[in-house]
Amino acid sequence: MERTSFIGSISAILILVSVIIAHGGSPGVFIDKAGILIIGGGMLCATMVCYPFEEIRKIPTLIRLVYFNKTRSPKDLVELLVSLAESARREGVLSLEKRLENIDDSFLATGIRMVTDGMAPDAVESILRLKIDAVAGRHHTGRGILSAMGRTSPVFGLVATLLGLVLMLSHMDPDKIGGSMAIALVGTLYGVLTANLFFLPFSDKLRYYSEKELERMELGIIGILGIQSGENPRIIRMKLSMFLPPSEVLVESEEGAA
Amino acid sequence: MERTSFIGSISAILILVSVIIAHGGSPGVFIDKAGILIIGGGMLCATMVCYPFEEIRKIPTLIRLVYFNKTRSPKDLVELLVSLAESARREGVLSLEKRLENIDDSFLATGIRMVTDGMAPDAVESILRLKIDAVAGRHHTGRGILSAMGRTSPVFGLVATLLGLVLMLSHMDPDKIGGSMAIALVGTLYGVLTANLFFLPFSDKLRYYSEKELERMELGIIGILGIQSGENPRIIRMKLSMFLPPSEVLVESEEGAA
Amino acid sequence: MERTSFIGSISAILILVSVIIAHGGSPGVFIDKAGILIIGGGMLCATMVCYPFEEIRKIPTLIRLVYFNKTRSPKDLVELLVSLAESARREGVLSLEKRLENIDDSFLATGIRMVTDGMAPDAVESILRLKIDAVAGRHHTGRGILSAMGRTSPVFGLVATLLGLVLMLSHMDPDKIGGSMAIALVGTLYGVLTANLFFLPFSDKLRYYSEKELERMELGIIGILGIQSGENPRIIRMKLSMFLPPSEVLVESEEGAA
Amino acid sequence: MERTSFIGSISAILILVSVIIAHGGSPGVFIDKAGILIIGGGMLCATMVCYPFEEIRKIPTLIRLVYFNKTRSPKDLVELLVSLAESARREGVLSLEKRLENIDDSFLATGIRMVTDGMAPDAVESILRLKIDAVAGRHHTGRGILSAMGRTSPVFGLVATLLGLVLMLSHMDPDKIGGSMAIALVGTLYGVLTANLFFLPFSDKLRYYSEKELERMELGIIGILGIQSGENPRIIRMKLSMFLPPSEVLVESEEGAA
Amino acid sequence: MERTSFIGSISAILILVSVIIAHGGSPGVFIDKAGILIIGGGMLCATMVCYPFEEIRKIPTLIRLVYFNKTRSPKDLVELLVSLAESARREGVLSLEKRLENIDDSFLATGIRMVTDGMAPDAVESILRLKIDAVAGRHHTGRGILSAMGRTSPVFGLVATLLGLVLMLSHMDPDKIGGSMAIALVGTLYGVLTANLFFLPFSDKLRYYSEKELERMELGIIGILGIQSGENPRIIRMKLSMFLPPSEVLVESEEGAA
Repeated sequence: MERTSFIGSISAILILVSVIIAHGGSPGVFIDKAGILIIGGGMLCATMVCYPFEEIRKIPTLIRLVYFNKTRSPKDLVELLVSLAESARREGVLSLEKRLENIDDSFLATGIRMVTDGMAPDAVESILRLKIDAVAGRHHTGRGILSAMGRTSPVFGLVATLLGLVLMLSHMDPDKIGGSMAIALVGTLYGVLTANLFFLPFSDKLRYYSEKELERMELGIIGILGIQSGENPRIIRMKLSMFLPPSEVLVESEEGAA
Repeated sequence: MERTSFIGSISAILILVSVIIAHGGSPGVFIDKAGILIIGGGMLCATMVCYPFEEIRKIPTLIRLVYFNKTRSPKDLVELLVSLAESARREGVLSLEKRLENIDDSFLATGIRMVTDGMAPDAVESILRLKIDAVAGRHHTGRGILSAMGRTSPVFGLVATLLGLVLMLSHMDPDKIGGSMAIALVGTLYGVLTANLFFLPFSDKLRYYSEKELERMELGIIGILGIQSGENPRIIRMKLSMFLPPSEVLVESEEGAA
Repeated sequence: MERTSFIGSISAILILVSVIIAHGGSPGVFIDKAGILIIGGGMLCATMVCYPFEEIRKIPTLIRLVYFNKTRSPKDLVELLVSLAESARREGVLSLEKRLENIDDSFLATGIRMVTDGMAPDAVESILRLKIDAVAGRHHTGRGILSAMGRTSPVFGLVATLLGLVLMLSHMDPDKIGGSMAIALVGTLYGVLTANLFFLPFSDKLRYYSEKELERMELGIIGILGIQSGENPRIIRMKLSMFLPPSEVLVESEEGAA
Repeated sequence: MERTSFIGSISAILILVSVIIAHGGSPGVFIDKAGILIIGGGMLCATMVCYPFEEIRKIPTLIRLVYFNKTRSPKDLVELLVSLAESARREGVLSLEKRLENIDDSFLATGIRMVTDGMAPDAVESILRLKIDAVAGRHHTGRGILSAMGRTSPVFGLVATLLGLVLMLSHMDPDKIGGSMAIALVGTLYGVLTANLFFLPFSDKLRYYSEKELERMELGIIGILGIQSGENPRIIRMKLSMFLPPSEVLVESEEGAA
Repeated sequence: MERTSFIGSISAILILVSVIIAHGGSPGVFIDKAGILIIGGGMLCATMVCYPFEEIRKIPTLIRLVYFNKTRSPKDLVELLVSLAESARREGVLSLEKRLENIDDSFLATGIRMVTDGMAPDAVESILRLKIDAVAGRHHTGRGILSAMGRTSPVFGLVATLLGLVLMLSHMDPDKIGGSMAIALVGTLYGVLTANLFFLPFSDKLRYYSEKELERMELGIIGILGIQSGENPRIIRMKLSMFLPPSEVLVESEEGAA
């Protein structure tokens, strides 16, 4: 479990609550049931207009991914591919068949199986590229759902505020104007926080995971095609290690050259 | 009929009405004929400046599509294409002619007919790609119309508000200022809801449908070209199944590898 | 003449005027010479900083295009190209020379003339593609000018409002504050309407016309190259008919397959 | 000198000053030293964080370009290239060497020299394309600097306003509230005008010049490669004339077909 | 060290402080601990939801890069590559091995080593291009983190303001309303400045560095492939010098033609 996102969400809320208490406010002032209903419900309803049910029901899965997914190290993938290449060189491509059951990455397994089945390299590459396109398309839709929620929640925050203001102005009572205004503003606050602390960052994190996953798939294709064409494992390692991050960011003095 | 969008629109309105009633407001306060006229009329008029009549008259059709269209399962398409490939392998490509009348997908039928007519593979692919481009262009225009409506409705909401404020300020009457302000704000509320509960999500849903439709067409081209070149139906199935969604989102451990 | 844009502009203004009158306001309250000068002049001046004179002087032509241009039916173009292909097949490519004077589409005429001149197919295509790029570039600049006007007019609306507020606040007179505020807000109203009822939709409509024009040119290239290579007129018709719109939007069950 | 931008900037300021005077305001009310310092200084400082010194020091040159640059007519370039092609056809490619000193366009001169040096056509094209990429990159950075200034000036206008409001609110004096508000609003006005009358249009104009310059370079490549391969000058003229603007915008009935 | 960014940040703060003092305000009015906590903490927490820990921990390194990185002159790289090309021509490609230890650019060293190892040109190019893609991807993520901070800091500035307003309105005390409003506005000021003086310009500067770094890599590939194919050093210099900036911006009359 990658805890950073979880800690980020919790800490932000704790900071806000502690500031409220430190200023002698009660957090209760900031709880407004109508606001929660309008922003949460409105956001969900508007997203239901954007996507069919088969996509909407994925929302809990998508949120779970943000908090619990873990990117796998590309280093392990490089080692696995190089070791497969070495086996293939020593014992022939067919020897990879017995290693298939230990490969838990379905994309890689699909590719290796096609190689051991003796499919033509062109067909192998085009099938794996179709897979990448399909996965990229599904990730794109997933991010789109969370973006739609992040885009509509401040809108319904504004709706809650406008609704509160109209109700207040149509029964104007000078003594209560401050409190009513406060409730109206809480709607805007909800919308802004829901979008910027949850759904827009959720969408950003899924994009990050998606980029990493697609990069792994690219690595997989380079490795599988190299294995199939009997390329030297040393060259395969060299190609794949180009993707490994150097220890220092942006300063490119890394082991790739070794 | 895919009911999610419909339920989304209705539920959002019910939530807003119930909040208004729960706060002792009458929904009547939120009905302002001038506002409806300015936002609805202004949105439509501005869109008429953007597009010629032959596009404008498609608006009802586009809205019907959002609420009533249903994406067809790519699984059925895969089965159909594989079964056509098997017939073609067993009985020759010409045997597909008698199956043409059972194919209700016009894109697929066009492609299969060209194959049975003995057209060159290059010509078949280029004609089908022209079709995809033309369909993508029409979908793009359709989404553009709904986007234009979604983009202009909050603008006319603001126009209604400004108009209300100017009228109010030019005959300032302290007793009525609250009520006039309320009416002015209702304009903004209309514009924001019209855009974010209807037209922008409509445009998003059409994009979703369009992506699915174009993906189906890509599947169709892969299948048709495979059939024409006498490719093994097992390989065609493998290629096409790359597009099928796994049971779990984003976790790619799917049957494609089987 | 395609009247939709014209009717859209007029109707929107009539709606606003009728709402003002219905609310007992006089349209005169909404006429503010200083505002018109700042928004109209500022918008034009800022656009003059963006583009040189040879582009600025095209503004009246561009606006005329929005209101008076008419897209030509691609169906007629398809018929013309197929008939030319049939002549060429029957009587040879040189026979097209005598039909040149009846072709009022200069792009098509250029292409046919190059074919009758016996230029190589590669040269014909590359020259026509250069033309498409040049036309696309000019259309892009034309839309850019109208977009710049649409982008700057609300800005100068805000400038008018700020200017009005500063003048009002620096000679504060409680009795006049309402009227002054009203005049200040009229500036914002002008800017918002100028942009969203005129210049941004103008730019959208030019994009629409441009897309249609470039699509026609693509059709032209397909037809001309088909004619030059002596392709079967039936296949040329099939290719070109892929671009024709089906009678129903987004539902792709069209005559293209026939 | 192309005076349109200059006239645009001056006229906009004259319009604003005349409106202020006509409303009995003194332009002095609109001069606020602190505002000028915050917007001008803040904009420049923020841009200094975006770019290193070697780019920042180009700002005066970039502004001079906006006001004083002049696009050269592509027509002259077409004539020059066709005349070079005719010389090359008549007297051989080496004869171009003596015309080199009369070519003041360094891109063209580089290309012609490579041709007379007998470099391979592939090398000539790839070197000229590298040049185009490098020039496009430099233009892109130049526009980026002016955009950054245009993007940050309204932000510092808002900073000036907020700063003014905080100072005013922390020493609240009912008699002065109008005047202080006026000063605060002047900050917003400065920021909006600086961005929309100067730096954003500057960036737009540089983009326009850049597009024209890159188009000239494309023309140059077509001409140079045509000359090198001994193409017929008539065909070179035909290709190049595709880029010339027709006398009427968007109506494509031009001399290119002649 | 490239000091421009550093001077920009410091100067902007000095300008603001001096304006505050000149207007008789005390800078202390602008220091609000709760605001600092909400904007700084909220920005960091929201960014933690966007990215996993392995990216978040790079923030200090990224900021150090903005202030302390220095772009290396492409001129030196051109000289180095041309000198390597001359050695390779004179003494053979293997002679480059002994110069490897003096090359501190790891990308170049990787490339030269592959050449001296006798790897095929295709493999060399594809490995170096993989490296460029990987580096571009890492730079993209780095910029994304700083952009996320720049995008969320004004949001939390708004959150601080809303929170302050709600607290103020729920205990309305007419005497303190000015001071409370001032504190609320300071939150917006913090958010706007944090974004526009720091994190958004940081992201812009990283993009600038990234473009320069990737351009250097492109130069490196051109040089390495030229060396491997035994291209004339004069032609290599000509190709590479196309990237060198002319002394004058946008005026392309440079030494490249010499």
